[in-house]
Amino acid sequence: MAEEEKRTVQIALIGAGTVGSGVLRILAENAEIIARRALPLQLRWLSVRNKDRGQRILDELGFGETRLTTDWQEALADPATDIVVELIGGITPAREIISAALAAGKSVVTANKDLMALHGGELLQLAAAHQANLFFEASVCGGIPIIQALKENLAGNRFLEILGIVNGTTNYILTRMQESEADFAEALADAQALGYAEADPTADVEGDDAARKMAILSSIAFNSRVTYDMVSSEGIAGISRWDIRYAADFGYTIKMLGIARCDGEAVEVRVHPVMLRNSHPLATVRDAYNAVFVQGDALDKAMFYGRGAGGAPTGSAVVGDIIAAARDLARGCGSRWGCTCYRQLPVRHIDDTVSKYYIRVQVQDRVGVFASLAQALSAASVSMDSVMQKRKLPDGGSEIVIITHPSRHSNIRVALDLIARMECVREISEYIRVEDDAD
Amino acid sequence: MAEEEKRTVQIALIGAGTVGSGVLRILAENAEIIARRALPLQLRWLSVRNKDRGQRILDELGFGETRLTTDWQEALADPATDIVVELIGGITPAREIISAALAAGKSVVTANKDLMALHGGELLQLAAAHQANLFFEASVCGGIPIIQALKENLAGNRFLEILGIVNGTTNYILTRMQESEADFAEALADAQALGYAEADPTADVEGDDAARKMAILSSIAFNSRVTYDMVSSEGIAGISRWDIRYAADFGYTIKMLGIARCDGEAVEVRVHPVMLRNSHPLATVRDAYNAVFVQGDALDKAMFYGRGAGGAPTGSAVVGDIIAAARDLARGCGSRWGCTCYRQLPVRHIDDTVSKYYIRVQVQDRVGVFASLAQALSAASVSMDSVMQKRKLPDGGSEIVIITHPSRHSNIRVALDLIARMECVREISEYIRVEDDAD
Repeated sequence: MAEEEKRTVQIALIGAGTVGSGVLRILAENAEIIARRALPLQLRWLSVRNKDRGQRILDELGFGETRLTTDWQEALADPATDIVVELIGGITPAREIISAALAAGKSVVTANKDLMALHGGELLQLAAAHQANLFFEASVCGGIPIIQALKENLAGNRFLEILGIVNGTTNYILTRMQESEADFAEALADAQALGYAEADPTADVEGDDAARKMAILSSIAFNSRVTYDMVSSEGIAGISRWDIRYAADFGYTIKMLGIARCDGEAVEVRVHPVMLRNSHPLATVRDAYNAVFVQGDALDKAMFYGRGAGGAPTGSAVVGDIIAAARDLARGCGSRWGCTCYRQLPVRHIDDTVSKYYIRVQVQDRVGVFASLAQALSAASVSMDSVMQKRKLPDGGSEIVIITHPSRHSNIRVALDLIARMECVREISEYIRVEDDAD
Repeated sequence: MAEEEKRTVQIALIGAGTVGSGVLRILAENAEIIARRALPLQLRWLSVRNKDRGQRILDELGFGETRLTTDWQEALADPATDIVVELIGGITPAREIISAALAAGKSVVTANKDLMALHGGELLQLAAAHQANLFFEASVCGGIPIIQALKENLAGNRFLEILGIVNGTTNYILTRMQESEADFAEALADAQALGYAEADPTADVEGDDAARKMAILSSIAFNSRVTYDMVSSEGIAGISRWDIRYAADFGYTIKMLGIARCDGEAVEVRVHPVMLRNSHPLATVRDAYNAVFVQGDALDKAMFYGRGAGGAPTGSAVVGDIIAAARDLARGCGSRWGCTCYRQLPVRHIDDTVSKYYIRVQVQDRVGVFASLAQALSAASVSMDSVMQKRKLPDGGSEIVIITHPSRHSNIRVALDLIARMECVREISEYIRVEDDAD
């Protein structure tokens, strides 16, 4: 855009937590770059809970003209406010804030995955109805620009598959378990000490956080609304250093993966640990990094890698959305995307999904164990690829690992039930799906 | 956008080679997906050199209503043509086509790296002057949406560094050399047999192709125009299986890399082989895949990975740009970006760039060789990190590898000159820069 056409776009920022502070810092430090690349942005309003803290932040970063409030409605009521940036997270009052802003024809930028994974459809419809933009790049994988890619750059593709390492906490834990042979508990404590994991790590470790992100990504990729309650998830708390070691023996790396596929008839979305071939690009993603692997009919395979969390990387995505919305405002056009869910496909039940499985079992050391295991599997119509004894246990029992051929999860559940009831079986220690298509 | 507001956007496609055919196939096979996600696209014109071949393609893909011509001006003269897609490549007549289309206020999508790396600035100015879009995602790294990312999603960042594996041919050759211990010549023949390398591989092997892509990427990232003649490049033809092996001994992988950095004072852009730590994400990029590694002040580190060439992946990027341009047209706004080069920084001369270097030398086996090598280096004010004898040569000489501390290239050239003139030195077999900052 030629200089003379540039106007200053007025921003109202709601929330100054980790991400909000990251955004404020970027707007302060890179104000000139942003103005020259796109157009000038002015922070007109900052709405916070604690006014003193808010004032300290504004003073520190030199936002002398910014209006400070503890009432977000004041910021929205200002007719001069062009773009509302919601960064408080959660459902309430974020949903009200965004709805009110859109209803007033203002564009909205949010990093709120909880809200978008549950009410994204209705909010995008509302945005379209008012010719306003609703951008939410920061709601998935922090600094990685995957949503814009799916919505526009790659929109010529029929998407076949999305595989994502979309939770940095679990990827950090599994990396530690693999590289320092730590147990889950040690690796978790390590992650908590580094601030990668919450005091209550449930949402990360059990996969709820990842399920929200996969709901958003699969809704966009397959144009069929998936809310996070439709995403089945299993956690990593049961994975031991032995699973990591045995995976390595087979040439696999264990990753907490979001898997979304669409065959045109139904959508499949799930989050659980997976054994991936070491040669798969996702297997090389270490520590707290995130990555999304996309397969499209034209694109073939692509991967987007980066920081999935943190104030600055997530702030980078928020500011990118602000710039996109500002460019549209300056040209008098909004509602760039609206909701792209133009159909509603069923979500396949987890019981009907098919994978290869790794099963680790502790048995009493006696003749005929392999035979009875094989019998139990075939009784559940699960066909076995291989079974091997991995180690003698201190007390004389032994640990056995079974790899199955691709099997329906419902059959695997029956098989696990039969095996658990076998007299020679002490425990089923763990089962993990195996994804070993060539990369 | 609500259904009723949708209009059909009229496309004129100029050129039906590899990329053109890829685009035609996507427009045919995914017409409905694109219409539902964004808006309907109509292929109004196809301009080709060979009319019979063009007609066969249109018939095969079912483009019954498309007008076929061998005169691109006819397609541009049609007032109903909204978007002109230039896919013939090269400078002439591509430059005329794009200029004429923009001057007529039509939006343009191109995959032309030669043109954009040389005349990108003037064409983007022309687009802005006529409020038209000029998109060129497909000109760099085929299916990887890196340009949009730099121009918008990541535009809040001050970019520090861009490292790119932006040429699939050389990455394939180096992968073969590493994984099957092939010599350069064998790996090249292999690449040619698979269609990854041209009969005349010079542009790929010597780095000219990569230099064009890095010129485009660094102009965008650093907001300072870099044309490809400013990019210094060195090829991979001199790399032997020994360099690959010795690199592995040090924990390095050799990659043909584009490196662009900016310190605010000057821009540094170069293309040459590099020894990368195996732990660096780029070191894991195999075969003909491309990847761009970006470091920004807010983003931290990110990597974009995918197919860098081929009709379908490159076509995916072209269609993504068509969709973006069509969305703007439907909302009556163009010139989304214009030229973002708002300053002109000097490009640092290759002599003034600083790297660690690996130097492989063949010497006569005699006392004092190490001492005289060390002397030559310090005479050129190059300080040595390590020197080691790697192998005895069949005829009794031996091969020595030197690793230097970070040194100016001008000093390295002096050092190489001094070493070459040493009486005990038979040849300087190769030198390769070492990039081993932690990833």
